[in-house]
Amino acid sequence: MSWLISEEGRQLEKTIDFGNKFLIGNGYFGYRGTMEEYDKSELPACNLSGIYDQQGASWREPINAPNGLYTQLFVDGDPYDLRTKEVCAHQQQIDMHQALHQRRTVFSGKSGEVRVVSERFASGTDKHLLLMSYSFCLENTTNIRLVTGIDGDVWDINGPHLFEYSHYSEGQTLGLSAISGEMKHTITVADTLTTDFEGTQRIFETEKGIFRQIEFVAQAGQTYHFTKSIAIYTSQDVAEPLKYAVKASHSANQKGYQALKKEHQQEWAQRWSMADVEIEGDDEAQLALRYSIYQLMIIAPRNSQATSIPARGLSGQTYKGAVFWDTEMFMLPFFLHTEPETAKNLIDYRIKTLDGARAKAAEYGFRGAFYAWESQENGQDACSDYNVTDVFTQRPMRTYFRDKQIHISAAVAYGIWETFQMTGELALLMNGGAEVILECARFYNSYAYYRPEKERFELIDVIGPDEYHERVYNNAYTNKMAAYTINIAEKVLEQLEDSPTYKAALIEKLAYEQEIEQLRNMKKALYVPQPDDQTGLIEQFDGYFKLEDTTVDTVRSRLIDPKEYWGGAYGVAADTQILKQADVVLLLTLFKEEYAKEVKRKNWQYYEPRTEHGSSLSPCIYALLACDIGDPEWAYPYFMKTASVDLTGESKQFAGTIYIGGTHPAANGGAWMAAVLGFAGLKISEGRVSVNPKLPKHWQKMRFKVQLKEEIYHVEVTKEGGKVWKQ
Amino acid sequence: MSWLISEEGRQLEKTIDFGNKFLIGNGYFGYRGTMEEYDKSELPACNLSGIYDQQGASWREPINAPNGLYTQLFVDGDPYDLRTKEVCAHQQQIDMHQALHQRRTVFSGKSGEVRVVSERFASGTDKHLLLMSYSFCLENTTNIRLVTGIDGDVWDINGPHLFEYSHYSEGQTLGLSAISGEMKHTITVADTLTTDFEGTQRIFETEKGIFRQIEFVAQAGQTYHFTKSIAIYTSQDVAEPLKYAVKASHSANQKGYQALKKEHQQEWAQRWSMADVEIEGDDEAQLALRYSIYQLMIIAPRNSQATSIPARGLSGQTYKGAVFWDTEMFMLPFFLHTEPETAKNLIDYRIKTLDGARAKAAEYGFRGAFYAWESQENGQDACSDYNVTDVFTQRPMRTYFRDKQIHISAAVAYGIWETFQMTGELALLMNGGAEVILECARFYNSYAYYRPEKERFELIDVIGPDEYHERVYNNAYTNKMAAYTINIAEKVLEQLEDSPTYKAALIEKLAYEQEIEQLRNMKKALYVPQPDDQTGLIEQFDGYFKLEDTTVDTVRSRLIDPKEYWGGAYGVAADTQILKQADVVLLLTLFKEEYAKEVKRKNWQYYEPRTEHGSSLSPCIYALLACDIGDPEWAYPYFMKTASVDLTGESKQFAGTIYIGGTHPAANGGAWMAAVLGFAGLKISEGRVSVNPKLPKHWQKMRFKVQLKEEIYHVEVTKEGGKVWKQ
Repeated sequence: MSWLISEEGRQLEKTIDFGNKFLIGNGYFGYRGTMEEYDKSELPACNLSGIYDQQGASWREPINAPNGLYTQLFVDGDPYDLRTKEVCAHQQQIDMHQALHQRRTVFSGKSGEVRVVSERFASGTDKHLLLMSYSFCLENTTNIRLVTGIDGDVWDINGPHLFEYSHYSEGQTLGLSAISGEMKHTITVADTLTTDFEGTQRIFETEKGIFRQIEFVAQAGQTYHFTKSIAIYTSQDVAEPLKYAVKASHSANQKGYQALKKEHQQEWAQRWSMADVEIEGDDEAQLALRYSIYQLMIIAPRNSQATSIPARGLSGQTYKGAVFWDTEMFMLPFFLHTEPETAKNLIDYRIKTLDGARAKAAEYGFRGAFYAWESQENGQDACSDYNVTDVFTQRPMRTYFRDKQIHISAAVAYGIWETFQMTGELALLMNGGAEVILECARFYNSYAYYRPEKERFELIDVIGPDEYHERVYNNAYTNKMAAYTINIAEKVLEQLEDSPTYKAALIEKLAYEQEIEQLRNMKKALYVPQPDDQTGLIEQFDGYFKLEDTTVDTVRSRLIDPKEYWGGAYGVAADTQILKQADVVLLLTLFKEEYAKEVKRKNWQYYEPRTEHGSSLSPCIYALLACDIGDPEWAYPYFMKTASVDLTGESKQFAGTIYIGGTHPAANGGAWMAAVLGFAGLKISEGRVSVNPKLPKHWQKMRFKVQLKEEIYHVEVTKEGGKVWKQ
Repeated sequence: MSWLISEEGRQLEKTIDFGNKFLIGNGYFGYRGTMEEYDKSELPACNLSGIYDQQGASWREPINAPNGLYTQLFVDGDPYDLRTKEVCAHQQQIDMHQALHQRRTVFSGKSGEVRVVSERFASGTDKHLLLMSYSFCLENTTNIRLVTGIDGDVWDINGPHLFEYSHYSEGQTLGLSAISGEMKHTITVADTLTTDFEGTQRIFETEKGIFRQIEFVAQAGQTYHFTKSIAIYTSQDVAEPLKYAVKASHSANQKGYQALKKEHQQEWAQRWSMADVEIEGDDEAQLALRYSIYQLMIIAPRNSQATSIPARGLSGQTYKGAVFWDTEMFMLPFFLHTEPETAKNLIDYRIKTLDGARAKAAEYGFRGAFYAWESQENGQDACSDYNVTDVFTQRPMRTYFRDKQIHISAAVAYGIWETFQMTGELALLMNGGAEVILECARFYNSYAYYRPEKERFELIDVIGPDEYHERVYNNAYTNKMAAYTINIAEKVLEQLEDSPTYKAALIEKLAYEQEIEQLRNMKKALYVPQPDDQTGLIEQFDGYFKLEDTTVDTVRSRLIDPKEYWGGAYGVAADTQILKQADVVLLLTLFKEEYAKEVKRKNWQYYEPRTEHGSSLSPCIYALLACDIGDPEWAYPYFMKTASVDLTGESKQFAGTIYIGGTHPAANGGAWMAAVLGFAGLKISEGRVSVNPKLPKHWQKMRFKVQLKEEIYHVEVTKEGGKVWKQ
């Protein structure tokens, strides 16, 4: 029961939400939870990972592949479509344990009831495969027309991206290729059909699609069944995507749906045996946490090299399919503890895109690596200078995410260092990790200004995690992370001491000798805002405490338009102390060992009522710090908010007039962190795994596993304490 | 003829404009050019200099005194009011040579024609006096009711300011006092009437006024005449303003209108004999230039100590009656060359307000003197953090004029140094001038950041003269002015070398020893953007050339609302190269000796088409530099635009939804500069006065005087050359 996410009834008003909620995927693609008969108006998408294209001057975004699942049943000439046809019953669900999407619909029409049952999965063993089983049964004997094939007329936010469609058919296999406008990527989908019925078949092409039509008389009470074996390849994978797609589709069809499903189930059972976190005493939390883990696992780039995860996962093109700091700061911990190979993959993506980060730094007149705020395939920054649209004038608003959110480079360095510490693999550093970290430290050295007045280096004119306050000076989080990056750079050089030739070569290559000296100076004099002696509070940035001290509700009440952007120069939050998301609290969470409990408590209490949680990254951090200071009851509602964000669909849908909906993998990762690092109090230090549980009062027990280097540890905690043992 | 500014006809739609255009004043007060019968709906104002008050949370602004001129003639019970009554003829004019305001109106009503003639002046010999002569003549014998007195129900932008009215009357003298809400200033107006007719008199009071009513039967064809001797005193002048006002009004009345007018005329004749600039060959230019000089003379704080001139003169409360950099950079040169005592007065105002500038620096965490962007009586900054209202949302917009327009301190230092150079009076430095300059230099030292990356000091996050671009780095003008301030500070210390005790005391008082060392370092390493080797262009600020390069018209065409603010974070100009006003061109004008002619020409040509001239400070600078590079024909239209800004009334009336109308003394001063320093090419260097004329082709001759130290020089220039001789 706690493995099923299910909805009953049509609920057409939630079609877009359900597209996210019932997402399936395998890291190579995500397929939104839409009905087989839907065309692009309901935002179906087979969203591809790491392959982007730009249409005109619009934002670059990931490509949606042609929809190989497209299937429409006509009964007596009448389309049986969930949107337009009355239904007696309808159910949509995800079986998380098996990673299966299931649909059951009983239509009622002039020809009587028609039952449709379908199941689909994004193969966990072959990332190119999307499989579907589909059956239908009629109450009365009636003429049937089944249309199924590949619909290339896909939904795009800033499209179209696909052009020059070419069609293929041979036997029961159809193929559709298209070429993207900017990058000339070829995207191919092939689909092989197996039916347990016969009829009059014909294949027809549209400009952007290819379909089979089968007509026959369906007998009352008999169930008809067919399967589709869909294969997706792009020219980023292979030189001849059509050849590969046709071959893969064909051989999947030969292997058969049930055999492929069995492999898939086994793979997922194995994944869950490592990744699951069991909670006793709270079914709701259990379901939400599992769902969060499910979401992380369907988008993990397991079988792709040097690929990362976009901020909206593979749920569509929102946020340009770009990789944000979300990955390192919010998703990476889950993978590091349960699936280190995937974690390394995420890191490799940053190593691969170092040149992009160097180019960005140079563009702004800095040295070192300034990572993209919204990173696409080569590390190029998809973030526009105008990332929000003014609701009053419909004009683009100049935003500073791209140029001022400099904490991104620290997040990258932090992620690499965490990964190195968990895996202990020096190769990670020597294969590019060290170079990235040194270049990130160099960037901060280059960015910093020295203020003789105060005899210190400052990081001025930045945006911290709280994006509602633009162009601030000495954001505590940013300065601390920059200082930490310099620290890491020093430690990396220490780690390389046993590889003197490599180290010397790297320093020479980077002309880093002088930088080391400068970093040493900067380390001494870089200003990091400290807790106030009296109040214990860390000021979020210079002058923050002088801003209007008000409430989130007051600020909300000042909105003229509900879609108004709260930040920017004149947003309702900009001149107040109201923040979008954890900022100082994030700093205290990451560096919790360095601050007194009283400081952490005071800051939590100060910043909590002033936080709007306009970002899904925020609540989990409040949950984590609340656990750390021994208040799991404070943490619990934040944990639940985080863990259920993609279940309830109650997240922010707009920034200005820009649609930002989709799944929330950072929150999913945050839910895992809050549970395992928060409530269970998991700590890994100097090669030892320990727990310090702070369970909510109605939780009896938690059980989970973590991996450290090559070892797998079982963990079980209760309110009284916990135990940890090696597998 | 070229001394008269005149308008015919009612032109009621121009009532507000004419209020500015026909302004009279004497530095202590300005009286707007409105009709005697107007109440506050037509924005009459007796605007007082240097006395401010705040109502609630509104902007602080100067106080308008009760209107002592108020006079309404009723003919057969019917008010003869220019706004409502038909007229056969109406004329309003300023005789600039005599500084007289004159009105002639022929009303036509049911009782036949009624002629009204009035004349008023703000006494040039006693700043507290406002005099009026008023006569009327009826076509037919009719009942007359004359109401004249003091109307304390004044127009305010952010009022009311006057409370606790008290009324006084004795004989023909009426008095009205009121107390301002915030500062508890007492403002008193007394008015003594002399008539050449008799009638039934009664005095009546309203809550905010006191009036005489005189009723009689006026005989056809007979001219009736009366005079009003109005005296204005405040508690800033004397402890008992009522006593002084009554006495002054009374004795003025005894002296008589004609005698006072004669003294006034003599005074003004003398002023003009020094200040006039004669142009042969261009009557239009002659009139406009004289009018500019008239405007400067009526607001000059001749008889007040340590008082400066607000940006809108004494034409009302716009711009909060505050003193801007306009004074030092645009008005001071006229006074320095023609009336050095007034120039010193302006400088004394800055010396007096040094503590305010220190407090402002401290408020932002800096040392030294950060002068107010909008300076009121104690140097407190009237500039709000929200100086513009968004036309779309009606919300106040966060502006950065107050916190980022740091070039104001350099303007103050520059003004003092110019004044010292022209007058040669070391006392000016020793009585506070030196201290101000040193504190301004200290401010820049304190503000500057060092960028190790580039081995230089930078002035970051500022607003230059071009306010359409907020929060820019290394504004060329600002950096150059800061460098010059440091230069001046060094020269000041040299000047004090002959006064070693004073110098030592000053350095000790300011704890300046270490500062000197630091300033020396800063002088070496402060970054001042230089002309590009290839193009000769100076970049207005870092990254300016990367902004959209478009035209003023294109940017204007993007306005949704004509009152929209062009600057701010999202204004139509903000992300383009379109600038509000001369910025680099101002820098080149001020430091013209330092740059090659070719550089000046290239920058003029580059920036000219990109300048919107949204500030009245802009055109004169383009005129000046055009003269300097030998192109008076380029300069001429800019000169005319500057010189006629208050004649045509064609200036910007709104910034956002904020009314910014009024007179433009900076443009008036700019017109004088363009004529004398530009076309005539006057140069004073090392005690020598020389000219290098660049006359527009239709100008035959210019004649004017200038004062240098104690000497007065006559200057006469033609296209062929010029001559200069001592008086």
